[in-house]
Amino acid sequence: MTDCVFCKIIDGSAPARKVYEDDSVVGFLDIRPMSRGHTLLVPRIHSSGLGDLVPDDGAALMRAGQVVAAALRTAPLTRDDEPADGVNLVVNDGKAAFQTVFHTHLHVIPRHRGDKLRMARSLLVRRDKNPDATAATVRAAVLEQIGPA
Amino acid sequence: MTDCVFCKIIDGSAPARKVYEDDSVVGFLDIRPMSRGHTLLVPRIHSSGLGDLVPDDGAALMRAGQVVAAALRTAPLTRDDEPADGVNLVVNDGKAAFQTVFHTHLHVIPRHRGDKLRMARSLLVRRDKNPDATAATVRAAVLEQIGPA
Ligand SMILES: [Zn+2]
Ligand SMILES: [Zn+2]
Repeated sequence: MTDCVFCKIIDGSAPARKVYEDDSVVGFLDIRPMSRGHTLLVPRIHSSGLGDLVPDDGAALMRAGQVVAAALRTAPLTRDDEPADGVNLVVNDGKAAFQTVFHTHLHVIPRHRGDKLRMARSLLVRRDKNPDATAATVRAAVLEQIGPA
Repeated sequence: MTDCVFCKIIDGSAPARKVYEDDSVVGFLDIRPMSRGHTLLVPRIHSSGLGDLVPDDGAALMRAGQVVAAALRTAPLTRDDEPADGVNLVVNDGKAAFQTVFHTHLHVIPRHRGDKLRMARSLLVRRDKNPDATAATVRAAVLEQIGPA
């Protein structure tokens, strides 16, 4: 699947801010984040959606989602260095469900108390002014979760 | 956890329209559906969220989510007997992420082409006029996926 941008990110031929890796899953920052630290987890093996996803990879995606969610709940994400108060895990399967990249992925989205307004705004803006710092922050928090390789 | 409504549904002491069961996961219709067929999948073992969820149960939840998603993509859900064109899998972890019942659960939400307007409305209404028929329809489609027990 040479024209799949996520496959290119996985094999290193397209740039991304990677924050998580295991044998079957790669995680990187969403370039249009709903909130700071918004991470996408993708199986290394290409599938377009839930219909052709290897069930073991779906399971691995959820295990990785749990690890990254725990990391985001400790990472200093906000201006006041607050970690996420909550996390959404989301798979959008199919155009009717808002899928835009057709390589199966799990969104891991940090949420903060009382940010309903900020969230509404973030739906429009979806931009992180310093994604490199965000990636470093999330990477460090993931490492705390899984320990050094 | 005798005061957990999902534990009560699992042990049969509270009513629900069950549409899926396996060794570690139970699925039933959401009583406030975002769309017809909106299903909740819950691990049989109680956990309040991703933080205390047994990773194997998270994996099982995703496997079940894939099965139910496939079922909803074949089930005659709409007035015109159309199946879902897409599906959202969602875990809301924490109040800040819109979690309302503190027993870990995966939402499986059918989506249909061109129903942005209907969806906006469904956020307000969230009512199924004939949930028993919906449950029967989803159950039949799940059985097609997994075969008879
Ligand atoms: Zn791909
Ligand atoms: Zn419970």
